[in-house]
Amino acid sequence: MLAWNDHERTRLRPLPTTCVSMPTFEEKLSFFKQQIVERIARAIDSETPVSLYEPIKYTMQGGGKRLRPVLLLLTVEALGGDVQAAMPAAVAVELLHNFTLVHDDIMDNDATRRGRATVHEKWDTSVALLAGDGLVALAYQTLLSTQSPHTLRISRLFTTALIDLCKGQALDREFETRDDVSMDEYLDMISKKTARLLSLCAQMGAILANGTEDQVQALKVYGESLGMAFQIQDDLLDITADPEKLGKDFGSDIRQKKKTFLLVHALRQASPKQKQQLMDYLDREAIDDAEVIRIRDLFEDIGTLSEAKAAVQRYIKIAEDSLTPIEKVHASTDSLKDLLRLVQQRQA
Amino acid sequence: MLAWNDHERTRLRPLPTTCVSMPTFEEKLSFFKQQIVERIARAIDSETPVSLYEPIKYTMQGGGKRLRPVLLLLTVEALGGDVQAAMPAAVAVELLHNFTLVHDDIMDNDATRRGRATVHEKWDTSVALLAGDGLVALAYQTLLSTQSPHTLRISRLFTTALIDLCKGQALDREFETRDDVSMDEYLDMISKKTARLLSLCAQMGAILANGTEDQVQALKVYGESLGMAFQIQDDLLDITADPEKLGKDFGSDIRQKKKTFLLVHALRQASPKQKQQLMDYLDREAIDDAEVIRIRDLFEDIGTLSEAKAAVQRYIKIAEDSLTPIEKVHASTDSLKDLLRLVQQRQA
Repeated sequence: MLAWNDHERTRLRPLPTTCVSMPTFEEKLSFFKQQIVERIARAIDSETPVSLYEPIKYTMQGGGKRLRPVLLLLTVEALGGDVQAAMPAAVAVELLHNFTLVHDDIMDNDATRRGRATVHEKWDTSVALLAGDGLVALAYQTLLSTQSPHTLRISRLFTTALIDLCKGQALDREFETRDDVSMDEYLDMISKKTARLLSLCAQMGAILANGTEDQVQALKVYGESLGMAFQIQDDLLDITADPEKLGKDFGSDIRQKKKTFLLVHALRQASPKQKQQLMDYLDREAIDDAEVIRIRDLFEDIGTLSEAKAAVQRYIKIAEDSLTPIEKVHASTDSLKDLLRLVQQRQA
Repeated sequence: MLAWNDHERTRLRPLPTTCVSMPTFEEKLSFFKQQIVERIARAIDSETPVSLYEPIKYTMQGGGKRLRPVLLLLTVEALGGDVQAAMPAAVAVELLHNFTLVHDDIMDNDATRRGRATVHEKWDTSVALLAGDGLVALAYQTLLSTQSPHTLRISRLFTTALIDLCKGQALDREFETRDDVSMDEYLDMISKKTARLLSLCAQMGAILANGTEDQVQALKVYGESLGMAFQIQDDLLDITADPEKLGKDFGSDIRQKKKTFLLVHALRQASPKQKQQLMDYLDREAIDDAEVIRIRDLFEDIGTLSEAKAAVQRYIKIAEDSLTPIEKVHASTDSLKDLLRLVQQRQA
């Protein structure tokens, strides 16, 4: 049995498929996660300037699911590619993701993230701003160190995704002051802000594994649908999850009047009376816990919560179906399906 | 005579060296600048999201010397390379430079830049933050569109330069709260914050022109020395230039207690009495115009202004000397020397 925490041995025999007994999905996840965490540490391994690297390390040591790099590595593995050779791309995506978190937290004025003070809260806005910039730079440095004939291609895709992330964030903020956001506009926004990075991971993984164009395309759809499901699930968790597990305030989306799936759906489907009640809450300066619960009850009555859950299922189904053509050639999409279950069932 | 403002003709006959009569250096500069401005407009040509692209366009239409892309194109030309093929790299550097300006203005809380309101002043911090992020993304998009066997190499250099820019900015901010900054620390900071981008331009230009490694190295030294001269000149202009021409407040570095060449030198060379006077000014909450003038007089007495001017000359000399090995092979370093004069003599 391979010792998962034995760094030297895992470096020599990195692929879980080389184990004597097949690892479970959970073992594989934890193995990938550990390797990613090690590689991240190497990518940000500088001491000075202290005001740049300290907040970067703080951010990257904040834990998190490492969903994006794990997805990338699982995709490579599914197509029989070299998981170790894809590690820089996986780390780059995680650095880029954390850049968006640090800068978004400044814009949203969020005080906590993953149960800890956000960077701008612990230091100040300038430090957080610069730490985010540094993370983008380190992400590109790591990505461009990829040894592959596809490095230029994945770097171009990575950049297009970064532009979409910026567009998604801009739309998200524009929507905050609008009450007429349509479901299509909302879906376009989250496809850029959340799903884009996940589809990038699946695409890059397929390309690095020398997948065919059909496989790259199929896995892009898989990543995108997974991302859409993930974000709608996230919107739901804002008012249904245990805040302690979530690591952020209960109902923080509602308090910021974020146009989530829930609010967009509710504002469109509410009766005139229900809509008036919702608008009354949204007009307030501050919304307290009891009011968040009353808004949740309104969402329940309007049918918003069940519709959100149904939307998550629909996207999970699209993701699952996108794997069918790949299964004909390869038999190793099990982990990608397991990942869908994980996203579907997550509680925080 | 080639019509410099005739886009179609210039696109067909892009190199000033193909003119019937040789263009003057000024004509060449204005020709390059015009082409760069056109290419920038194409690189940022999107309408939505409005909150992302409007501030990006505002920033890029703010004028400026376009020194960095011009330097890159002059380097390509000096080595007989294809100027048009280097255009994306030139535009990328200008986009990256403007990203640093937008984010630095947030950190420094500067209200004006090039005689206009800064982005965070005209909109707000979040808009400026995101516009800066978008500029980095668009810079990479443009850079990675370069059609050259060297695209990957220049992208790696570009990224190392971006990391250095972040480090330089972090040091600059760390120095604000320190009174014991040495001249070596100051020079290291500006080599990262200012000179690095100029050396990148010269390096990228030489690489794209298929220069030898010796030429790439020589031009890197040229760009770096030009950059050092440029920054020390900039420090001087803060208290010697006409504020209207400068487009920013008179003595704004002093008011922010920035560790410029002047302040670092003066604090080290002042007599105990002069140092006390300087510290008294620096301890104040706000410094008015009359006090800035008194600090300038102190700099004069300490010998700081003449030492700064001498330092500019020394770096210009290093830059000039670095061109000698290139002249043996090519005879077209005249423009690179003209550029040194321009930096040396600039008034704003």
